[in-house]
Amino acid sequence: MRENIIGRANVEDTPELEAYYRELEQYETGALWTVANTIEPWAPQSSSVPVLWRYADLRDHVLRSVQLVTPEKAGRRVVYLNNPGRRDVSAAVGWLYSGLQVMNPGEVASAHAHSASALRFIMEGSGAYTIVDGHKMTLGANDFVLTPNGTWHEHGVEPDGTPCIWQDGLDIPLVNALEANFYAVHPNLQQEVTYPVNDTSKTWGHPGLTPVNTTWSKGYSPLFKYEWAPTYEALQDYGKATDGSPFDGVMMKYVNPITGGHVMQTIGASMQMLRPGEKTRAHRHTGSFIYQVAKGRGYSIIGGKRFDWRERDIFCVPSWMWHEHANASESEDACLFSFNDLPVMEALGLYREEAYGDNSGQQILAN
Amino acid sequence: MRENIIGRANVEDTPELEAYYRELEQYETGALWTVANTIEPWAPQSSSVPVLWRYADLRDHVLRSVQLVTPEKAGRRVVYLNNPGRRDVSAAVGWLYSGLQVMNPGEVASAHAHSASALRFIMEGSGAYTIVDGHKMTLGANDFVLTPNGTWHEHGVEPDGTPCIWQDGLDIPLVNALEANFYAVHPNLQQEVTYPVNDTSKTWGHPGLTPVNTTWSKGYSPLFKYEWAPTYEALQDYGKATDGSPFDGVMMKYVNPITGGHVMQTIGASMQMLRPGEKTRAHRHTGSFIYQVAKGRGYSIIGGKRFDWRERDIFCVPSWMWHEHANASESEDACLFSFNDLPVMEALGLYREEAYGDNSGQQILAN
Amino acid sequence: MRENIIGRANVEDTPELEAYYRELEQYETGALWTVANTIEPWAPQSSSVPVLWRYADLRDHVLRSVQLVTPEKAGRRVVYLNNPGRRDVSAAVGWLYSGLQVMNPGEVASAHAHSASALRFIMEGSGAYTIVDGHKMTLGANDFVLTPNGTWHEHGVEPDGTPCIWQDGLDIPLVNALEANFYAVHPNLQQEVTYPVNDTSKTWGHPGLTPVNTTWSKGYSPLFKYEWAPTYEALQDYGKATDGSPFDGVMMKYVNPITGGHVMQTIGASMQMLRPGEKTRAHRHTGSFIYQVAKGRGYSIIGGKRFDWRERDIFCVPSWMWHEHANASESEDACLFSFNDLPVMEALGLYREEAYGDNSGQQILAN
Amino acid sequence: MRENIIGRANVEDTPELEAYYRELEQYETGALWTVANTIEPWAPQSSSVPVLWRYADLRDHVLRSVQLVTPEKAGRRVVYLNNPGRRDVSAAVGWLYSGLQVMNPGEVASAHAHSASALRFIMEGSGAYTIVDGHKMTLGANDFVLTPNGTWHEHGVEPDGTPCIWQDGLDIPLVNALEANFYAVHPNLQQEVTYPVNDTSKTWGHPGLTPVNTTWSKGYSPLFKYEWAPTYEALQDYGKATDGSPFDGVMMKYVNPITGGHVMQTIGASMQMLRPGEKTRAHRHTGSFIYQVAKGRGYSIIGGKRFDWRERDIFCVPSWMWHEHANASESEDACLFSFNDLPVMEALGLYREEAYGDNSGQQILAN
Ligand SMILES: [Fe+2]
Ligand SMILES: [Fe+2]
Ligand SMILES: [Fe+2]
Ligand SMILES: [Fe+2]
Ligand SMILES: [Fe+2]
Ligand SMILES: [Fe+2]
Ligand SMILES: [Fe+2]
Ligand SMILES: [Fe+2]
Repeated sequence: MRENIIGRANVEDTPELEAYYRELEQYETGALWTVANTIEPWAPQSSSVPVLWRYADLRDHVLRSVQLVTPEKAGRRVVYLNNPGRRDVSAAVGWLYSGLQVMNPGEVASAHAHSASALRFIMEGSGAYTIVDGHKMTLGANDFVLTPNGTWHEHGVEPDGTPCIWQDGLDIPLVNALEANFYAVHPNLQQEVTYPVNDTSKTWGHPGLTPVNTTWSKGYSPLFKYEWAPTYEALQDYGKATDGSPFDGVMMKYVNPITGGHVMQTIGASMQMLRPGEKTRAHRHTGSFIYQVAKGRGYSIIGGKRFDWRERDIFCVPSWMWHEHANASESEDACLFSFNDLPVMEALGLYREEAYGDNSGQQILAN
Repeated sequence: MRENIIGRANVEDTPELEAYYRELEQYETGALWTVANTIEPWAPQSSSVPVLWRYADLRDHVLRSVQLVTPEKAGRRVVYLNNPGRRDVSAAVGWLYSGLQVMNPGEVASAHAHSASALRFIMEGSGAYTIVDGHKMTLGANDFVLTPNGTWHEHGVEPDGTPCIWQDGLDIPLVNALEANFYAVHPNLQQEVTYPVNDTSKTWGHPGLTPVNTTWSKGYSPLFKYEWAPTYEALQDYGKATDGSPFDGVMMKYVNPITGGHVMQTIGASMQMLRPGEKTRAHRHTGSFIYQVAKGRGYSIIGGKRFDWRERDIFCVPSWMWHEHANASESEDACLFSFNDLPVMEALGLYREEAYGDNSGQQILAN
Repeated sequence: MRENIIGRANVEDTPELEAYYRELEQYETGALWTVANTIEPWAPQSSSVPVLWRYADLRDHVLRSVQLVTPEKAGRRVVYLNNPGRRDVSAAVGWLYSGLQVMNPGEVASAHAHSASALRFIMEGSGAYTIVDGHKMTLGANDFVLTPNGTWHEHGVEPDGTPCIWQDGLDIPLVNALEANFYAVHPNLQQEVTYPVNDTSKTWGHPGLTPVNTTWSKGYSPLFKYEWAPTYEALQDYGKATDGSPFDGVMMKYVNPITGGHVMQTIGASMQMLRPGEKTRAHRHTGSFIYQVAKGRGYSIIGGKRFDWRERDIFCVPSWMWHEHANASESEDACLFSFNDLPVMEALGLYREEAYGDNSGQQILAN
Repeated sequence: MRENIIGRANVEDTPELEAYYRELEQYETGALWTVANTIEPWAPQSSSVPVLWRYADLRDHVLRSVQLVTPEKAGRRVVYLNNPGRRDVSAAVGWLYSGLQVMNPGEVASAHAHSASALRFIMEGSGAYTIVDGHKMTLGANDFVLTPNGTWHEHGVEPDGTPCIWQDGLDIPLVNALEANFYAVHPNLQQEVTYPVNDTSKTWGHPGLTPVNTTWSKGYSPLFKYEWAPTYEALQDYGKATDGSPFDGVMMKYVNPITGGHVMQTIGASMQMLRPGEKTRAHRHTGSFIYQVAKGRGYSIIGGKRFDWRERDIFCVPSWMWHEHANASESEDACLFSFNDLPVMEALGLYREEAYGDNSGQQILAN
């Protein structure tokens, strides 16, 4: 790819150069100017495309997997989201994996651990629970739970529950790409619950209060579960104290209560509320995002294309792509859960952001 | 003070030495061995003594000040706690000041700022409020509020309130001793309320959630108020997840939600719950502590002396003095609010702690 | 890839399932159990292979590029190192790019900036210099210089110098993969030198001393150049105070003098000395490494294969591959410069390390 | 102290109030308005005065102590600096202690430890050494060495040395005031040297290089000695890269190479160079400072009073007092070593600084 710009490579192929290139190949080398413009793009061009996954489309297929495979054979019964531009790494967007998992009452997955970090966002059903390093957490719709890098974890549904569906989010593609993923099955297949149920919420889940004499030095939050009710209350409270972000409405980040930072070292998560009738301005930034509609209905314009969504729908925003959101209701608020790789962007100094300046901050729809 | 121990000064006065000492004085110098053992003690010997201030004794005197002086003349109507060992610096213990302030409905103090850090813990009355740098906070019994180093602050009671009494806690003696105290009266005498009422709680007071796009780099918590109801709920929750500390029962530290650290750079604060019948073991540590009984009744043994307390009583524990606490009720819990100079001890590398090993961890009462 | 292990996917294809899979594809989804074992490997399997690039092989080709292309046309005259397993991303190993660049006396490259972080390690020639954000640095053999993420930078050789060759190291493949790379050509094509020559060394290059009243809050070291003479002196000094690492001999990390941490947020670098006759034990860890032999001769065993090296040779160690080093001289020390993606591994919580336990820590050579 | 200013206390004594005050005393309390203006000053008023201690005055007295007392009896033979305003706490200024210690060849002090942090700055003699936690360091004139909080340390002079004099600097008064000082004599009276001599310099004393695989998490620098030669070289180098500070000339802070921060948690230190003929502008700031003239001659104006100094003289600047410095030579530079309590001011959020605005930044001399 030649470019006729000073400072960019612009070398014509000649027989002499082609001979030179073949010689270089013998020594596992190449001439930089043959690839320089390709590997030094002017700005990020995501290989992902924006996608909306409608829950109405997927729910039946997810439930059908219960008939089709046993948990023992499948490991986990998950329908994963497969971005057309990222099929080679089974990613939903960028380096983030996501899938919808289903479990029937009384089922228990085997305990395991991996270097990839994971989260779950509960979509429906009652009786679901997760155990992380001996801490058992009960889960309901719109609850958000962590199973961080290196922890033993397992999921289940109580025998008196109902079929449960949740969204999994992981950085498996990233950790694989970084050639740093380890996986282990728990020696006993199940781990013991060694703390009182929901103890991490009892211990770390109170605002501005920390247990004395308790230490924590791991790279992730000691609070493993973020429940919906206090999260929604927080959004409403915060909404009374802020004008909100022009790009995101009333938005809060889930944080590690010990550091005020991201919940895990590779995946961040947020919940945002679009107030009745709210329509945000477009911006773009590095980092890949996966959203789930926790409440309400509306639409997002991503890369010039409109995606209409309602509760439980999932959509993604690729890196450096313009995006804006709108609540379609004039009376109800709409809430978007999202997770992302911002901790990676920030830790590596790669976060950049830009506001869409034209047309009052609204993208022109592409045809 | 001579000591006959190797490594310690043990020099007898002689005429020759006395002449030498006089010569040294001429040059603003002295011989170290004449003071070495005094200035290098084997362990801290606090100049403070343990004191219990009974609210039953003080309440009437505090209220009487309303008749005796106007707020305009007095600046603030405060009865301050004066440790017998610290009268020279008007401290309640160590380098911490404390006092009981009273304000009548409709009264407003003038706004001011100082390098000393301050806190209030509300004891009784309704309608009290504090304004800190434009943030107004409404206050009720057992609420804890910050007025940090350098902030403009003022207190008042709404016209439809009742007479309010609260405990002030400051590090004025410390900041004076460090020769770093500045004081300023607000140019307009009153500051404007520039944020929604109680906005810091709405913004920062939700567990595990932080506003996106909001920055804070000051040395103190952006959450200025810690209310009693969620604090008490936190203690009860945490009590279900912990065995508690052998020295302190179920104890939580008030923290800056952004850093997980102390609420201010010079003063820390905690709330602890002694479960029905709970009797802790004795320990001692560096740092000075002032307690207020937020709930219940019991006693503390401090330096071998028993102090019986009930709701609203205040007592202090000097640095490196043995102390243990007991709840006198077999059915009700007891809660102790306390503030301290632990942030100073920790920041300067001076924190040390020791458990009382004898007699099952219980001090022998001195007669 | 089926695995007959509890907790792993082991589902046989059936017509019914195949139909199900085709349906899922319509909605940009898939069944996790068809890819789960692949995307959750038991341990990292690097797609890179160990390679040794002999300077004796490459030097002439590098110099020939001077005749073949102009700097104007080529942008930069670089022969880049192309790992057989990473040709798709033009990486030397993992997500690290490296190449050998040549410049003639009097040549100057155009100034530019990119989000990728870069370093140079000088191999031969006199008169080379680099300018980074207005700071000009003169360079000699074995000097190591940074051109961090976001800085304007350009290289040149003084008219009275000699042809210069250096090794470039960048994280271009990583930053591209993270979809966060931006590139800009300096508006004036050349930047001005706005500080005294070598000022960053004068300012930050003194042990245990920092300028008062100078602030720095960027993600990379304010010291841009690390010269060979003091580095070699440091290794010799440190060698007198340590037994060294069993895996690496006497090894020091180049650090940001303000934080004691890595020189940049995505690339770390070290220099290590193998003492005469020293032969290290094998270990493996996550992270990709590129070495250049700064001094001496010896060999490394990487993944069971022996690579003999001498001064200026370059070799790589892929992630999680066993490696050990040996100095072939009984009288002279050998020094290895290396750079790596450890800052990424550490910031993301992905660093793991293991010692080779068998055979006294020595790998068995594969045939 | 009444003040007729709104917001300040201004209450007249009346018989009724005096009776009230007597009652309050019975309960270990007082009325705040009787002390408020005193304990809340408008700005810091240091109780220290500026003092210059001339080495010409002190040297003989210091040497005479060798005849007057044995090290065994005296503990240490030290003439300490006694600020007229701080005699009660044996401080040279503020909460900082300083003294001149002398030791004859072959003498060894007994090893001990304390919570106070200490430093030595060598004035004359050869053969001096210090041992800190098993690390032995050899010392010459203008070398600066740490004996941090909690470390076992001892001093000596080699049998083939000469009588050595050095300045001690400690925060004993501060740590006593904070009621946190512990003192212990080493059980064996002498400690063993368990590392190669000067190993901390060999290990940590190289710019921009840190040993790999070495950890350090203490509150003080792992580099215990800062030698004069590289320090002076640093000042000269830095002087070529900076215009210097208008208040301090070319000034560098001694730092912990791991953190870039102060060498200890309670005491900081710096070396500054006044270029030939340089005369700085006045400023003032919180924090107490003790200077020793390491090189050259000149004068300082402190609180409106001129103090002329030459090599080895010592002087102090109290908190919040105006000060400016001048080099009296037009051809030679002058160097001032200083230590201070800035780490305390900074950690507690109490640092404030102000430039002297009038008269081109030069104080008017008081008569
Ligand atoms: Fe998992
Ligand atoms: Fe966004
Ligand atoms: Fe105040
Ligand atoms: Fe205690
Ligand atoms: Fe570049
Ligand atoms: Fe290695
Ligand atoms: Fe000492
Ligand atoms: Fe100063």
